[in-house]
Amino acid sequence: MTTRIVELRRGILKKNDELAAGLRSSYAAAGVLVLNLVSSPGTGKTAFLELTLRELRARGAKVAALVGDLETDNDARRLAASGAPVRQINTHGICHLDAEMIGRHIDGWEGVTLAALDYLFIENVGNLVCPSSYDLGEGIRVALLSVTEGEDKPLKYPTLFNSADAAVITKIDIAEPCSFDRDLALRNINEIRPGIRIFETSAKTGAGMEPWLDYLAEERTRRET
Amino acid sequence: MTTRIVELRRGILKKNDELAAGLRSSYAAAGVLVLNLVSSPGTGKTAFLELTLRELRARGAKVAALVGDLETDNDARRLAASGAPVRQINTHGICHLDAEMIGRHIDGWEGVTLAALDYLFIENVGNLVCPSSYDLGEGIRVALLSVTEGEDKPLKYPTLFNSADAAVITKIDIAEPCSFDRDLALRNINEIRPGIRIFETSAKTGAGMEPWLDYLAEERTRRET
Repeated sequence: MTTRIVELRRGILKKNDELAAGLRSSYAAAGVLVLNLVSSPGTGKTAFLELTLRELRARGAKVAALVGDLETDNDARRLAASGAPVRQINTHGICHLDAEMIGRHIDGWEGVTLAALDYLFIENVGNLVCPSSYDLGEGIRVALLSVTEGEDKPLKYPTLFNSADAAVITKIDIAEPCSFDRDLALRNINEIRPGIRIFETSAKTGAGMEPWLDYLAEERTRRET
Repeated sequence: MTTRIVELRRGILKKNDELAAGLRSSYAAAGVLVLNLVSSPGTGKTAFLELTLRELRARGAKVAALVGDLETDNDARRLAASGAPVRQINTHGICHLDAEMIGRHIDGWEGVTLAALDYLFIENVGNLVCPSSYDLGEGIRVALLSVTEGEDKPLKYPTLFNSADAAVITKIDIAEPCSFDRDLALRNINEIRPGIRIFETSAKTGAGMEPWLDYLAEERTRRET
């Protein structure tokens, strides 16, 4: 039975990769930079993304977000407070988003076209395992880790950190009460993914947002030229 | 393909349920209370469990622990500091423990027999989705939630909280810097699982451990009579 599962899983991932390749082409044609945000539940993806959307809008960028959760549209409502168009995807028990879900929700998205956007953010289902295997055609995969979580998460979940293009440490405002060992966390991230860009941020105080927003702008420019 | 996956998944879960029923019988015959601890990565399961093992040993109880992670034996080493026998299970990419893994690791566990134990703790892989469907034959399933994670986790991950026998809120020492809304968290847990026993704890300060340890002792006594 295990062999049949492995084969079926391989087939599903292959189909997902094909769909993701199609998405990647349409993102490129539309000139939109797509980011896939992955972390444990509770890392603070939504708060970080809401601030990112606000700040990018303040800089004049055109942004939108898709957000995945098993149930509820809590996160879509929180993100919509930024003023950006947001669409909730409920996976009803599935522990990750996949390329088919993304394609379907972009297609039927009232008032939003890819060509009119500078950035599209995808907030994945809170999970450190399942989303790692599913390409969504994104340009940048971001692994987030909060100071509350334990510095050895990159070692315990190497697949995610190894497939990420950038790492964001969140909630640095409570690093001290959490006895967060910054050096150890940075060392562990670098052990799994040497040289990865790392941002240290707080959505509560706004700390560390400037380098992150500059990075997004640079990546957009770099891909256009 | 989806239909075949659903059928195979059903078969796997059915097989797991059969193995779990067998485990449940052997736990009962041995007179050991088995607990399955489930939460998001970073909730503080290991710190909470280490303190629980220490305190139970100080009370004269015989305890042991199995701990699941995708990779590394970091958690087994941390738990072993309590003085209790601990065995690491590495799942290598699988996002939950299953009954087969538990049975196999109990069987070959040098120096540990179920009949000599009062409590066996199983620390599941950090994940709010996958472990919910896999019965490990446990007497008590514990869902943990830290004050850093967002009060709406029970609503977003109803399957876990709905299948839990007890809920433990962790890290209450940093509730204030995390702006934790206690009333909202309690309300959300109760909405998904009305009347569930809830413990509010800090492994750092030891707060809230007494009611938790008393609960464990009561549950053991209740099951023996």
